[in-house]
Amino acid sequence: MAVISLSRRLRRTAFSDGVEAAGVKGYTVYNHMLLPTVFRSIEEDYHHLKTAVQVWDVACERQVELRGPDAGRLMQMLTPRDLRGMLPGQCYYVPIVDETGGMLNDPVAVKLAEDRWWISIADSDLLFWVKGIAYGYRLDVLVDEPDVSPLAVQGPLADDLMARVFGESVRDVRFFRFGWFDFQGRSLAVARSGYSKQGGFEIYVEGSDIAMPLWNALMEAGRDLDVHAGCPNLIERIESGLLSYGNDMTRANTPHECGLGRFCNTQTAIGCVGRDALLRVASEGPLKQIRPVAIEGGPVPPCDRPWPLMDGQLQVGQVTSATWSPDFETNVAIGMVRITHWEAGTDLDVVLPDGTVRPAVVNGVFWN
Amino acid sequence: MAVISLSRRLRRTAFSDGVEAAGVKGYTVYNHMLLPTVFRSIEEDYHHLKTAVQVWDVACERQVELRGPDAGRLMQMLTPRDLRGMLPGQCYYVPIVDETGGMLNDPVAVKLAEDRWWISIADSDLLFWVKGIAYGYRLDVLVDEPDVSPLAVQGPLADDLMARVFGESVRDVRFFRFGWFDFQGRSLAVARSGYSKQGGFEIYVEGSDIAMPLWNALMEAGRDLDVHAGCPNLIERIESGLLSYGNDMTRANTPHECGLGRFCNTQTAIGCVGRDALLRVASEGPLKQIRPVAIEGGPVPPCDRPWPLMDGQLQVGQVTSATWSPDFETNVAIGMVRITHWEAGTDLDVVLPDGTVRPAVVNGVFWN
Repeated sequence: MAVISLSRRLRRTAFSDGVEAAGVKGYTVYNHMLLPTVFRSIEEDYHHLKTAVQVWDVACERQVELRGPDAGRLMQMLTPRDLRGMLPGQCYYVPIVDETGGMLNDPVAVKLAEDRWWISIADSDLLFWVKGIAYGYRLDVLVDEPDVSPLAVQGPLADDLMARVFGESVRDVRFFRFGWFDFQGRSLAVARSGYSKQGGFEIYVEGSDIAMPLWNALMEAGRDLDVHAGCPNLIERIESGLLSYGNDMTRANTPHECGLGRFCNTQTAIGCVGRDALLRVASEGPLKQIRPVAIEGGPVPPCDRPWPLMDGQLQVGQVTSATWSPDFETNVAIGMVRITHWEAGTDLDVVLPDGTVRPAVVNGVFWN
Repeated sequence: MAVISLSRRLRRTAFSDGVEAAGVKGYTVYNHMLLPTVFRSIEEDYHHLKTAVQVWDVACERQVELRGPDAGRLMQMLTPRDLRGMLPGQCYYVPIVDETGGMLNDPVAVKLAEDRWWISIADSDLLFWVKGIAYGYRLDVLVDEPDVSPLAVQGPLADDLMARVFGESVRDVRFFRFGWFDFQGRSLAVARSGYSKQGGFEIYVEGSDIAMPLWNALMEAGRDLDVHAGCPNLIERIESGLLSYGNDMTRANTPHECGLGRFCNTQTAIGCVGRDALLRVASEGPLKQIRPVAIEGGPVPPCDRPWPLMDGQLQVGQVTSATWSPDFETNVAIGMVRITHWEAGTDLDVVLPDGTVRPAVVNGVFWN
C-alpha cells in the first residue's frame, strides 16, 4: 500500500486537526483537498455509520458562489434542470454539462437568495467553467470560492446529536431543504442532506475560525451517542447507489447515461449550455446506463480502474465501483451497461485486473 | 503516515504498470491522476537523479488540445505572454490568468501547427476554463483532452539513453524546442524540457498502446547507464527553484508575484484575459514575490500548509515548499515575501506547525 505524500497543494481543511486527532488512516484527494477514507477500518466505520452517528469532514465539497444580478441566469445556464420553481431555502441536485452534454460535475445547488447561490461541488474545478462562461457572456455576477466548509453529521442518531447542538427545531428541516441555525453567535445554513442513506445533515460552516469549535462541540455533545469521526463510506455509498463523479461517470457521459434524466428538463431549461446536444437523448433515452451489479465470489480487490463487463467475447459495459458488502454478503458494484444487457437479472462476466473472470448479475435496484 | 485509497477517480496512467513494477512507495494526486513521489527513498532518488538517468511517469501533465481556425486566437486570450513570434516546434512556459490576473495554471504551450496547440498543464482543470472561454466567445475551435501521456527522461545521462532509443539526432533538440521522432512506427513529439535542472527530455506519448512498450524500451536500453524509474524530486525541484502550482502559487497570486513577470508582455498581448488587471502590476511591480529561503537547524517536517515568515510579531510572508537538502546541508525552501523584507540576506523567523520557531534567511538565488 502506497502512502500519500502531503504538500500544501493537497489542501488541509478547517477540520484537519480534528481528523488527525481522531486517528485517520487513509485519504483520497478531492478538489485538491484531503478527504478521509478510513478511521478504524472501512468495515468498522460502515457498521458504526449504520447504527450510530458520525461527523464527517467534507470540506472538500467546495462551494462555487454566484452573487449578483445575473446569478440566477448563470445558474440556469449551467444545468438542464429547470430551476424556475426553486425557492430560497431549497437544495437541488443538478447535473452540470458542457456544450456536448457531457457531465462536468454533479453538485448540489443551494439557493440562498434570488441573487445568491452556492454550488456544492463534486471533484472537478467547476469554478473554472463557471468563471469562463460568466466572462464569455459578460454576465453581471461575482463567481468565487468562499470560505465555506461543509461538515456532515450522518447516521440514525444524527437528529438527536444535531438537536443537542442546534436546538430541537433542527429536526424540522425537511429533505434537501436548509434552515439558518445559530452556533456561537454565527448563523449557519444547515441542510438535511449528505452522501449516505443513513439520514443526517450537512452544515455549511462559513468561516474557518468556527470549524474546530463546532467539530469539538458535536464530539462533546454526542459522547453518549457513541459519536465518531467518519467519512463517506465506500461500502455504504455503493449499497445506496450514490454515484461518484470521476468514478461512475465522467465528461464522456450524459446525465441520462448516469440515470439522472429525472433531473433534466431539457425542453424547458431555456438557455442551458448543452441543451441542443441533450434534446435527442432526452426524448429517445441513452444507449447505456448505470446499473447496480452484484459480483459473485469472495471480496474483490479495490476497483482502481474500469473492469470490463462481458457477454462472452463481447464487452457490454464496465464496473467502476465495487466492494464487498458484509450486510448483503456479496460484492456490490456500480456499472455502466449497454441497453441490450441492462435488464435486471442479466448474467454477465466481469474481468478483474489480474485476468480472473467472475460471474456478475445486473440488479434491478440498489441495496439500501 | 496515511495511505492513499485508490479508486478510478484517481486515474491510473498508461505507465502505471511500469511504475508499480518498479516498486513505487508513495503517490500524490495531480490532475485527478496518480503521480509517483518516491521509489527507493526521496534522498536516494535525489542522488540518483543528479548522477544517472531516470524515466518519469508524468502522464498527469495532461494536455489541453486546441484545434481549428481560432486556436491561435484562443491561445493568446489565455496568456499575457506575447505569442506572435512563436513558431511550430517551440514550447513556451505560459502563465495563464483569469480576469483578475490571478494564476489559473502555469503550463507549457506546445505549438504543433498554426492551428493546433497542446497545453501541457499543471494541477488544475484548465480544460474547464478554456472550454468556457471558447464557448462564451463562440470561437471556431475544438478543445479537448487527447490521449497524450508525457514521459520524462531526466538526469545527466538522459541524452545518452534517448539517443539509443530515438537515434543520435535527438541530441540536437534545443532547450524548449521539440522534434518529431520515430518509435515503433509512430511519430512522437520529443521536447528538451522537464521538471528538473539535471537536463533531459519529455516525450509526448500519443496513444496509450505504445506507452509501456516505450517505457520498457528505455529501461532495457539504459540498463548499463543505471536507469531507474523516478519522479519529480521534492529536494531537487526546490534546490532548482522550480515552482509548483497549488504549492507555491495559487489563484490568489499574479504572475508577477510568482517571479513570472518576464513571461508577461501585458502591453502587447492583445486580447489576453486579465490584461487590464495586470497592466498596473506589470509597470509598478508586485508587493510580494517568491524568494528562495534557507531555514536553519535540522530537517524540517513535510510542508503541508503555509508556514508564516515573521519579522518579530509582524508576518511578512510564508513558506510554501521546504525540505532538507543533503547536498547543501540546509533546509531549502520557497517562500512568498513582502517587498520590505525580500532583499537577499534578510533574516526572518519561520513558524512551524508545532509552534517551534526557526531562523530563516532570504537567499539571492536558488541552489542549483
